[in-house]
Amino acid sequence: MSERGKLSIVGMGPGDPDLLTRKAARVLGEAPVVAYFAKSGRVGHARGIAEGLLARGVRELRFEYPYTTEIAHVSDEYRAAMDCFYDKSAREVAAALDGGADVALLCEGDPFLYGSAMYLADRLGPAYRHEVIPGVSGMSACWSRAGVPIAHGDDVLSVLPGTLPGDELAARLGGGGAAVIMKVGRNLAKIREAARQAGVMDRAIYVERGSMTGEAVMKLGDVVTPGAPYFSMVLIPGRRGVR
Amino acid sequence: MSERGKLSIVGMGPGDPDLLTRKAARVLGEAPVVAYFAKSGRVGHARGIAEGLLARGVRELRFEYPYTTEIAHVSDEYRAAMDCFYDKSAREVAAALDGGADVALLCEGDPFLYGSAMYLADRLGPAYRHEVIPGVSGMSACWSRAGVPIAHGDDVLSVLPGTLPGDELAARLGGGGAAVIMKVGRNLAKIREAARQAGVMDRAIYVERGSMTGEAVMKLGDVVTPGAPYFSMVLIPGRRGVR
Ligand SMILES: C[S@@+](CC[C@H](N)C(=O)[O-])C[C@H]1O[C@@H](n2cnc3c(N)ncnc32)[C@H](O)[C@@H]1O
Ligand SMILES: C[S@@+](CC[C@H](N)C(=O)[O-])C[C@H]1O[C@@H](n2cnc3c(N)ncnc32)[C@H](O)[C@@H]1O
Repeated sequence: MSERGKLSIVGMGPGDPDLLTRKAARVLGEAPVVAYFAKSGRVGHARGIAEGLLARGVRELRFEYPYTTEIAHVSDEYRAAMDCFYDKSAREVAAALDGGADVALLCEGDPFLYGSAMYLADRLGPAYRHEVIPGVSGMSACWSRAGVPIAHGDDVLSVLPGTLPGDELAARLGGGGAAVIMKVGRNLAKIREAARQAGVMDRAIYVERGSMTGEAVMKLGDVVTPGAPYFSMVLIPGRRGVR
Repeated sequence: MSERGKLSIVGMGPGDPDLLTRKAARVLGEAPVVAYFAKSGRVGHARGIAEGLLARGVRELRFEYPYTTEIAHVSDEYRAAMDCFYDKSAREVAAALDGGADVALLCEGDPFLYGSAMYLADRLGPAYRHEVIPGVSGMSACWSRAGVPIAHGDDVLSVLPGTLPGDELAARLGGGGAAVIMKVGRNLAKIREAARQAGVMDRAIYVERGSMTGEAVMKLGDVVTPGAPYFSMVLIPGRRGVR
């Protein structure tokens, strides 16, 4: 029996292929098999970043999410469907590894920060050799592109999913620290209201598609659309901390 | 008069030179002038990562911190000395830019996340062309090397400076979300006590020199030394969030 392959969980960075690490670029160029998640009918964001960097003849394992938008996360049905989806994806990756091939799992941004890759790592980590290659996160790209130093000195930085209830968001924004709100999308109106309640609207910055084609940076107060695309976040820099 | 140079604020990643982005590596290789902060008598961490990647004949602007350890941050004297230090450093960078040279300012990890570069960006940003190149943060390297997915689904992630008072740390750790504690160093005993009080000791992981030579990963409860080196942090993964 051949030796089992190694799984590399590869942080692909925020969007600009130039923000890939040297290590990620090398691993991609050598992997005989790449795996990635994608929304139905889309290229897959992580796969898009890898364009032109993969080995000739690479085998691609494409996993299409069963849902196209992030629906009510609390439903048991959604949870069961996602569990089943990750189980099936993990089995396909395991089959490639069992056949002796190294597999690169492509992940947006930094894999272990709210990434789907974590669910495959949970399932495959115990049985297979693996390595996580950190990447530049979406939030680092957004505050760099916006030119906004996010946290100084003794600032606390809170990373908040926009899926939280509005009053919880408002309470967490009110403390005076720095904050990043991810998963804005359909939560935009709620987030705007929470920022207003918390009195941070004057320093809240909205970034769409940070480091990608179609990037936009503006004050949150100037956003006029009712919703936002998947790749968008809100930044609230800390009040200047003590040096 | 020649055209003024451009300032690139370059995220050097967490320590492993292979975790530099492709963009950072290119900018470093082309810069006629590099600038960096360093502790007195040390190579300078960011400068160390750049070893072997700089252009021949590069001019180096080295800025030595006036203090070797992070002393009581609240003192006016410390604050004034640091202000003066950043002013002087900014003037030296400005002189190079005024002379027409592009300058790469080397920064550990991601520049705008608790980085000293922010103080030069504040001073030079308004007057000079500049770009911030995001990097892989120290925290991304630490949770990747530890194999610890930090935040899932609706988890809140709090990034906390270890310089906060112990009871504030304990209160913020107690909420059930994910947390990262930076600036551990001399604050180790206080952080350990806060983790115990908050009841998160069983999931607290300590990482020293993530992705660098001399890396160590262990349970916080297993750390026996009274203090920790500058490059160390504590990770508290969130309770598994809803998918
Ligand atoms: C499921 S999380 C994955 C985060 C990813 N692992 C990372 O490290 O950035 C997806 C959210 O990240 C944010 N995001 C990631 N990359 C982004 C970018 N380039 N521009 C704006 N938002 C981004 C958006 O808020 C999006 O809803
Ligand atoms: C002033 S902050 C600078 C953070 C940096 N800009 C970043 O993005 O990682 C310094 C703190 O970052 C943490 N840190 C940075 N890199 C690290 C690494 N490779 N391993 C462990 N801790 C690290 C330590 O807690 C250290 O005290």
